[in-house]
Amino acid sequence: MILRRLAAAFPHSRRFFSSNSNHDFASAIVDLNKEMESIFGEPPTSNGFSGSVSNDFMAQEAQLTSQKICDSTPGLTHIGRTGEAQMVDVSPKENSQRTAIANCKVILGKKVFDLVLANQLAKGDVLSVAKIAGISGAKHTSSLIPLCHNITLTHVRVDLMLNSKDFSVDIEGEAVSSGKTGVEMEAMTAVTVAGLTVYDMCKAASKDIQITDVRLDRKTGGKSGDWCREK
Amino acid sequence: MILRRLAAAFPHSRRFFSSNSNHDFASAIVDLNKEMESIFGEPPTSNGFSGSVSNDFMAQEAQLTSQKICDSTPGLTHIGRTGEAQMVDVSPKENSQRTAIANCKVILGKKVFDLVLANQLAKGDVLSVAKIAGISGAKHTSSLIPLCHNITLTHVRVDLMLNSKDFSVDIEGEAVSSGKTGVEMEAMTAVTVAGLTVYDMCKAASKDIQITDVRLDRKTGGKSGDWCREK
Amino acid sequence: MILRRLAAAFPHSRRFFSSNSNHDFASAIVDLNKEMESIFGEPPTSNGFSGSVSNDFMAQEAQLTSQKICDSTPGLTHIGRTGEAQMVDVSPKENSQRTAIANCKVILGKKVFDLVLANQLAKGDVLSVAKIAGISGAKHTSSLIPLCHNITLTHVRVDLMLNSKDFSVDIEGEAVSSGKTGVEMEAMTAVTVAGLTVYDMCKAASKDIQITDVRLDRKTGGKSGDWCREK
Amino acid sequence: MILRRLAAAFPHSRRFFSSNSNHDFASAIVDLNKEMESIFGEPPTSNGFSGSVSNDFMAQEAQLTSQKICDSTPGLTHIGRTGEAQMVDVSPKENSQRTAIANCKVILGKKVFDLVLANQLAKGDVLSVAKIAGISGAKHTSSLIPLCHNITLTHVRVDLMLNSKDFSVDIEGEAVSSGKTGVEMEAMTAVTVAGLTVYDMCKAASKDIQITDVRLDRKTGGKSGDWCREK
Amino acid sequence: MILRRLAAAFPHSRRFFSSNSNHDFASAIVDLNKEMESIFGEPPTSNGFSGSVSNDFMAQEAQLTSQKICDSTPGLTHIGRTGEAQMVDVSPKENSQRTAIANCKVILGKKVFDLVLANQLAKGDVLSVAKIAGISGAKHTSSLIPLCHNITLTHVRVDLMLNSKDFSVDIEGEAVSSGKTGVEMEAMTAVTVAGLTVYDMCKAASKDIQITDVRLDRKTGGKSGDWCREK
Amino acid sequence: MILRRLAAAFPHSRRFFSSNSNHDFASAIVDLNKEMESIFGEPPTSNGFSGSVSNDFMAQEAQLTSQKICDSTPGLTHIGRTGEAQMVDVSPKENSQRTAIANCKVILGKKVFDLVLANQLAKGDVLSVAKIAGISGAKHTSSLIPLCHNITLTHVRVDLMLNSKDFSVDIEGEAVSSGKTGVEMEAMTAVTVAGLTVYDMCKAASKDIQITDVRLDRKTGGKSGDWCREK
Repeated sequence: MILRRLAAAFPHSRRFFSSNSNHDFASAIVDLNKEMESIFGEPPTSNGFSGSVSNDFMAQEAQLTSQKICDSTPGLTHIGRTGEAQMVDVSPKENSQRTAIANCKVILGKKVFDLVLANQLAKGDVLSVAKIAGISGAKHTSSLIPLCHNITLTHVRVDLMLNSKDFSVDIEGEAVSSGKTGVEMEAMTAVTVAGLTVYDMCKAASKDIQITDVRLDRKTGGKSGDWCREK
Repeated sequence: MILRRLAAAFPHSRRFFSSNSNHDFASAIVDLNKEMESIFGEPPTSNGFSGSVSNDFMAQEAQLTSQKICDSTPGLTHIGRTGEAQMVDVSPKENSQRTAIANCKVILGKKVFDLVLANQLAKGDVLSVAKIAGISGAKHTSSLIPLCHNITLTHVRVDLMLNSKDFSVDIEGEAVSSGKTGVEMEAMTAVTVAGLTVYDMCKAASKDIQITDVRLDRKTGGKSGDWCREK
Repeated sequence: MILRRLAAAFPHSRRFFSSNSNHDFASAIVDLNKEMESIFGEPPTSNGFSGSVSNDFMAQEAQLTSQKICDSTPGLTHIGRTGEAQMVDVSPKENSQRTAIANCKVILGKKVFDLVLANQLAKGDVLSVAKIAGISGAKHTSSLIPLCHNITLTHVRVDLMLNSKDFSVDIEGEAVSSGKTGVEMEAMTAVTVAGLTVYDMCKAASKDIQITDVRLDRKTGGKSGDWCREK
Repeated sequence: MILRRLAAAFPHSRRFFSSNSNHDFASAIVDLNKEMESIFGEPPTSNGFSGSVSNDFMAQEAQLTSQKICDSTPGLTHIGRTGEAQMVDVSPKENSQRTAIANCKVILGKKVFDLVLANQLAKGDVLSVAKIAGISGAKHTSSLIPLCHNITLTHVRVDLMLNSKDFSVDIEGEAVSSGKTGVEMEAMTAVTVAGLTVYDMCKAASKDIQITDVRLDRKTGGKSGDWCREK
Repeated sequence: MILRRLAAAFPHSRRFFSSNSNHDFASAIVDLNKEMESIFGEPPTSNGFSGSVSNDFMAQEAQLTSQKICDSTPGLTHIGRTGEAQMVDVSPKENSQRTAIANCKVILGKKVFDLVLANQLAKGDVLSVAKIAGISGAKHTSSLIPLCHNITLTHVRVDLMLNSKDFSVDIEGEAVSSGKTGVEMEAMTAVTVAGLTVYDMCKAASKDIQITDVRLDRKTGGKSGDWCREK
Repeated sequence: MILRRLAAAFPHSRRFFSSNSNHDFASAIVDLNKEMESIFGEPPTSNGFSGSVSNDFMAQEAQLTSQKICDSTPGLTHIGRTGEAQMVDVSPKENSQRTAIANCKVILGKKVFDLVLANQLAKGDVLSVAKIAGISGAKHTSSLIPLCHNITLTHVRVDLMLNSKDFSVDIEGEAVSSGKTGVEMEAMTAVTVAGLTVYDMCKAASKDIQITDVRLDRKTGGKSGDWCREK
């Protein structure tokens, strides 16, 4: 419903997608209404403030504003009912063991790959530094990602592997916590920071290096349960 | 020799490369000797400590150790002569204006793309939050990447664009500084953190999202001059 | 008692209050003695070190010093018996759900208010950026406030509202945790950082902006129980 | 012009201001058009990307999007032409000595004031801790305020004064830098963090404490020159 | 070429110990084999990946590598079976109250000692600032020490004492937590940062100051139980 | 003079030194008066506020307070005229290249030394991780040490050396900057954090490890010129 009204309000808005798009906007709007409801749930009928505490201040202010700026929808996602970002309230969730494994790949090219291989054969530091950076990076996730909860991690693991098939460094990161929220972002951040560190140490030798395939590989725990990427 | 001895010590070691590799290890060693010289330059003839200060302590200690643990090679890269990681000493470099632009892409898939598009049409916060996270992330680069210099940035720009052709968010980040060292890592970190933030806000809707093509697009300034990725 | 001795030791000390003060110092001292006892409690009679672990080292040192530098009073406040700052030891406290809501107000003046209003009507980023900054700020509370415990937060919410009655931005922040210590400072920090961010983005248009009325609105949980500011 | 179109697009939008407002919205729009031009300057006629580097990538992408997501206006403020937040590009600015002094006030109430006074007479730590927190806070400004530049400070000063006239702590903070951008936010952050620290240490004794009058007192240096708040 | 020269430079590789060592290397190797087993435990016979989650990705890659880069040994230390650093996985550990006390000493020399003593008699800030820095430092332990877990602390205490016997500042720090891992590093970091802060404030008066005897004094809790340094 | 008055005010104060001290307090006071003047300089005769900006606010407030809380003495040290801590104002200083080298030693004991030696012979990560931690630590100096300026570093070097003579790790750290203030604290912090990291990785094997002899070895640049510790 919101989207239908938006479509009406912005009849000619093509700001965020190409006019020569092969993507049918009209049908998207229809789908979106369904998707939004399935993802975000039905909007609450009351206009009530959804905070954890009854809120006289807001009630009082409600006489001044015809609509509240932030009418957050509790729980499911980082987007409130009116499109605003929000931190998910995990207060009511149970503590449970949660694990996430993410991967990424740093494509070095043959020349740089051989340099890193030589460094590794000589027991050099390139992969060690990246591993340490990844572990440290995971601990800074909530400082980097605005809506992430700051949590305590019981384990972070980052492994780097030289892959001679495509002259890349394959990176795998794992984060483990015993808390109320998942650790996907910690695992994602770990591999990304490790990848950036590999890039940093190799960038003098080539500017064609790129980091790709940053993605979640699997997760366990939490309400949504276990998940594993299909191979 | 070390490599030969290493090869002898690890006769079956195929730890860092595949046994069914189509990459010829023997010739790689030959190439590596050449590459190492072209990249790292000729090692200094003196065995002297390359620090900025003459070093009685180390001289004294030299009687106890047949060779110093870290005999750093000045300037060019993050890897010293003996394979150890090192921060590049940029003290002798001139201040100059330096710019770097990096890109990455967050592949959302059609379903999530439509959700983000709807959020954007509703002037929601998804891309704004990621933009802010990217700008902030650039300022934390030296905390994340161990061998990066901590520098002051005169500008950071992060733009996010919905690309309906491949249902992705295209991210471009720019960092500018007036200092002694380049800002490639700041631009790379900016787009990566922005990408992770998009991932974070969308991960409830799909686990198939991935971040790809994190790479430098262009740079200006510094001794190595301007560079632009070929299209 | 301490105060009586202090008053004797500093008979002419007027360093920290005005000589033309309308505040009667003499009676204050009397009141203070009572207040100090009611707030800080009776000082322990023993000189024993109050740490969580019996302390041979300190016992041994006690022969050398006629009085210990830090003779901390456990639990209630951030000020020890001898006036020194201390972190409150919350180890013996129970975990419980704790919530705090704080407010502040950024007085923009009509001119800047209209600019922010226009930005908001155009669905611009001013309030979004401040909101994100406030959420992130809450997560950094223990880095900013020396005696705050570093805790994990299960929720942070920051809302900003344009108030046309006094041309201000009204900010409300909420922090939630399930731990051993309250989250008042996290809520206070959230609204303050959000307010500073509004200031930052508007300061080019006016230097008369000010942040006021930063205060706690309500709290729940903890030993001291629920509290709500009277309206 | 943008505003006129916005006013047409949102004829009944009263979302961000009260319907019973004594503030005339119609005339505000007219004023805003003038103000926006005087503050932000004339919008550039070309649609060109305003980054510091000519931008083939964006040009190429421009064929895919009918309008760029971020069309930043260089220099003056943190708000781009289309309402998006942006970091100000200070690259072209000259280095100069810049100073800013900010104030705030923590209203303690008589009871808490007397406690802090007693602590201060006993040479206790309350004001010292807050002073140190304020100095440290100034150094973290760019981590807290998303669009602030990370700069090096040559001096930070924070002074706290017990004011018996209104039972408050008056805080004054000064930041000094020799760079391309002002230090107002560093001074503002210094006094705010100092104020929050006073609050933290006193909150056990009263919940009625509030921080008010956080504002810039004066500044020197930079293109806009010296400024001093009228008394 | 570089590699060949390196091999020549280390014919008998004595890189990490003195040739005139009074320490018998030959027997050390024998001992080391025993020690390593007693400390690190028997290496697992299986090549299986020791992560908390069964790992198809690694299994798949195992066909390409004869040995995994990181074959971590769970639990006991920060060094994996193949010499790589690793964060200890504390996920299976029980929560328990853990306390650690560490000490250090800052040798000032008589001249600086008298200055600090005078400052302290004047109720100056030197020791207060160091105390606050130590408490704050403890909260940053996991940011400084790469393989430390980020944990929440329920208490941090730092005391500084002027010791006129050797003209030093004696520092004692205590950290308390209710978690799955010890707090030795937090206590060690607290006293070290406090010591560095004393050094910083006194260094203008003398460069002969040194920090010594940074060590653990006692600990309680955890699987290894209580421990106290013998006096 | 201040001291004389203090001595009178605290006739029996033996709080900060031992009553059985072999250190003559009476003569110390005399020396201190001289020392204080030689170190801190003569106190300014005027009561004027020493900030960089003329200060109407403070002037106005001066009528309310008989003496200012903080009457800072510019430049030389971190201690103001009245004993308060202060950041040194380096604004008027010239930029110059500054270098500092610091050392410390981690006494491992034979058993742990052999373990680290074995790890090092196996080209393990112990010393590499500590080296990286030290380099990163140097970049966080101003976050740890309250009165340190936040500066940009052009180089940080940390070397670790196994010393079989006393079964220790000898650590040397160097910091280089081109700025207005020295880098002693950055070098001191680098070796300290590296030492703590060695401790962390070895603490499971022994609790008798200690860090000692943290001290400055030499410095160059700045107004006070070059300095080298006598051997």
